[in-house]
Amino acid sequence: MDAAEFRRRGKEMVDYVANYLANIEQRPVYSDVKPGYLRSLIPTEAPLEPENYEDVIKDVERVIMPGVTHWHSPYFYAYFPTASSYPAMLADMLCGAIGGMGFTWASSPVCTELEIVMLDWLGKMLKLPEHFIAGTHGQGGGVIQGTASEATLMSVLAARCKAIQQVQASNPGQSEAEILPKLVAYTSEQAHCSVERASLIGGVMMRKVPTDDNYAVRGGMFKKMLEEDKAAGLIPFYLCATLGTTPSCGFDHITELGPICNKENMWMHIDAAYAGSAFICPEFRPLLNGVEFADSFNFNPHKWLLTNFDCSTMWVKNRDDIIGVFKNSDQPFYLKHEHQESGLVTDYRNWQIPHGRRFRSLKLWFVFRMYGIQGLQAHIRKQVALAKEFESLVRADKRFEICAEVIMGLVCFRLKGSNQLTELLLKRITESREIHLVPCQLSGCFVLRFAICARTTDSKHIQQAWRHITQLTFEILQEPNH
Amino acid sequence: MDAAEFRRRGKEMVDYVANYLANIEQRPVYSDVKPGYLRSLIPTEAPLEPENYEDVIKDVERVIMPGVTHWHSPYFYAYFPTASSYPAMLADMLCGAIGGMGFTWASSPVCTELEIVMLDWLGKMLKLPEHFIAGTHGQGGGVIQGTASEATLMSVLAARCKAIQQVQASNPGQSEAEILPKLVAYTSEQAHCSVERASLIGGVMMRKVPTDDNYAVRGGMFKKMLEEDKAAGLIPFYLCATLGTTPSCGFDHITELGPICNKENMWMHIDAAYAGSAFICPEFRPLLNGVEFADSFNFNPHKWLLTNFDCSTMWVKNRDDIIGVFKNSDQPFYLKHEHQESGLVTDYRNWQIPHGRRFRSLKLWFVFRMYGIQGLQAHIRKQVALAKEFESLVRADKRFEICAEVIMGLVCFRLKGSNQLTELLLKRITESREIHLVPCQLSGCFVLRFAICARTTDSKHIQQAWRHITQLTFEILQEPNH
Repeated sequence: MDAAEFRRRGKEMVDYVANYLANIEQRPVYSDVKPGYLRSLIPTEAPLEPENYEDVIKDVERVIMPGVTHWHSPYFYAYFPTASSYPAMLADMLCGAIGGMGFTWASSPVCTELEIVMLDWLGKMLKLPEHFIAGTHGQGGGVIQGTASEATLMSVLAARCKAIQQVQASNPGQSEAEILPKLVAYTSEQAHCSVERASLIGGVMMRKVPTDDNYAVRGGMFKKMLEEDKAAGLIPFYLCATLGTTPSCGFDHITELGPICNKENMWMHIDAAYAGSAFICPEFRPLLNGVEFADSFNFNPHKWLLTNFDCSTMWVKNRDDIIGVFKNSDQPFYLKHEHQESGLVTDYRNWQIPHGRRFRSLKLWFVFRMYGIQGLQAHIRKQVALAKEFESLVRADKRFEICAEVIMGLVCFRLKGSNQLTELLLKRITESREIHLVPCQLSGCFVLRFAICARTTDSKHIQQAWRHITQLTFEILQEPNH
Repeated sequence: MDAAEFRRRGKEMVDYVANYLANIEQRPVYSDVKPGYLRSLIPTEAPLEPENYEDVIKDVERVIMPGVTHWHSPYFYAYFPTASSYPAMLADMLCGAIGGMGFTWASSPVCTELEIVMLDWLGKMLKLPEHFIAGTHGQGGGVIQGTASEATLMSVLAARCKAIQQVQASNPGQSEAEILPKLVAYTSEQAHCSVERASLIGGVMMRKVPTDDNYAVRGGMFKKMLEEDKAAGLIPFYLCATLGTTPSCGFDHITELGPICNKENMWMHIDAAYAGSAFICPEFRPLLNGVEFADSFNFNPHKWLLTNFDCSTMWVKNRDDIIGVFKNSDQPFYLKHEHQESGLVTDYRNWQIPHGRRFRSLKLWFVFRMYGIQGLQAHIRKQVALAKEFESLVRADKRFEICAEVIMGLVCFRLKGSNQLTELLLKRITESREIHLVPCQLSGCFVLRFAICARTTDSKHIQQAWRHITQLTFEILQEPNH
């Protein structure tokens, strides 16, 4: 394919994309293909000679679309949203064309420089404490990670490294191998599975803190566990607090947890993967109070801030802590550059697990400028209002109950009575494929999660979804055994 | 921005991208901005209200382009290539629009299904042993990781997990904490820095094996180290062999190393990040002989197989080994789906560090079909021929010497005599910004790496680069102190 054909095919693709998103409601939101469906639809080997582009693009409808779960359908209410907007897509096209790596400052200076400044812009939008902002006299700064999983892992590794140094400073004889088995990390029993995985990767013990009636970690319970563990000779070194848990969007009490971590010299990481975007609205910002006690903070603009995946923003209080993770590894010759020793530059490869990295800040720059802070706030507020609207519908129906406080864009609800009833309702919802949602478990109950996801979801979709749910409920309750 | 504006702006962006790539030679390949250049060019905070798209796109030339190192310029010879092609860019546009997550099979079936089959296609193109191909009776299969760093890390973690189980099976009383400090991983002293980092993350010791005169690890030296370490009570459990090292594109002797690993019950991972793409050509495939001894194998189509970043393909001999890494972590309720227990589906979140994942196989599908195997082979052969052409130019000039055998698209060379001379030459090259390359160190010598990178690099660019290098050399040798 030469440049002339790319011009033609690229413009066709722009129209395909615009048409796909414009007509997405007409597709079944949840794919009904069976495992292995694709293999029989295409050859068993790559073609020897080039094919025509027409044949490839025709196969998008024949082979690809039947197997797509349409995350940007306004009838998609599963998991949490993954963001999508036109400005982010345009920026991604440009990013693909520039297509360089940003592992060191010199490998493409703008990739590093725009990221530093965009993380400052975003940090200021969230009113983060000044020590997280790179363009101040503080020691902190921001970075774009691929996912919250990677941000959590980097925070665990930084905390592990720091804890070992601290123990060794007061007990010079102790080896890493002696210290490591004594280190204990903590997180909520409601935390995302990636938090536990970070501890498995880092080879450190992780204990899960029981939550209160609102599925939130409180200071009292946390303190109690710390005392027990310290009495048993263990070394508490890390807490991952969650703002907006995946099951119910619960908020750990970081104003209680932060001072405990600071006093105990433990690292506090805050994972606000979903909810973090909402903190750009003054009315939600109080939920972030306590961030001043944190060593690191992370959320995913690729979830709720209209920036296509991947873009997970992380701030650290002290750059040296995160860079410390890899400081004992060699700096290869081919990565040295003239400005490195000046202390003026950031080499982001030292802040992350992967070596290579894309020019992801371009997406943030396009999104911030094309929406403005007010446009982004409007998006958050609209989706929270839709969740409240759905909550009212559920509350008005005596057969149902709300299972957790609705604070952001997630509504947890169930049919009153046995779990089997709600399980059956979900089965029927899934089979009908008109809307898509997934369950969670709260206090032993089988609960449905209704998350406002697509950018284009509107009141009419919510109302339609509720009509559909109540219709299926009516049918179930008519059946003889109920 | 609404759909109508996206149609218009998207088409303009297609033209911008096509123009950028068509005229890239006119831009200085290596940016001359100074650290911190960008901050003063843009506001200190995000705008409150939306801006015009015209103002944003105008700023691409004013703010972004001055800080870009142009990796796709035919005068870019630094590091190793990062791939770029029109079909991959088109696929990425589609991927951005579909924009779903593929963490489980159900979260978007096609994302998993196409990946399985594309990895089979690619595995067959490389003539990988059948046990790596998912569509056979073997236990293996492929996955797309973000980077080779992540593939290496996953292999270290899988090997660590397996080794601990094996030691515990024969010594039931031993705890993980007792075993971990005895585990030893190995890699070449020439291996990429990400290999050492994987061991740091996983908390295991890593020893670097000295290489022979061709900068390759041989069986003899490796065996000697193993014997010493075992005699010291350590447990060798993992080797990362490299095919195509970053400094000199050296090839470890996996036909010697593989049988040793198998006999010692050690995991052998093969990192062929750059060179792997070349194995689709029959004439280069013998360099992969010995892969049949490996437990895992990885290379980056996003380096040399015309597939834009990120796309790092990894195969494992035994799926259970890689899934085993996270098998002790909880499976959250919201990720369960009806087909999970059938054993028919792959949930790729268990194969990787991040939780979220893009629909990256779409790029491979477009690239394989639009180039055909022959088109991809032609790309590899053309770039190797260009490296040979450059090698001949160097060899014909008695002032220079070639420092490592030229096998793929990399030429290592230097001015005969002191290191200072070649260092000065590189300084002049960097200052003139007509071409861009980076150095390496081989046997204590300061060496220049000339890597054929851009898809559009041609004989005329190589000739021009050499004229430029020899002109600068002439000037240096004219100076009184030389």
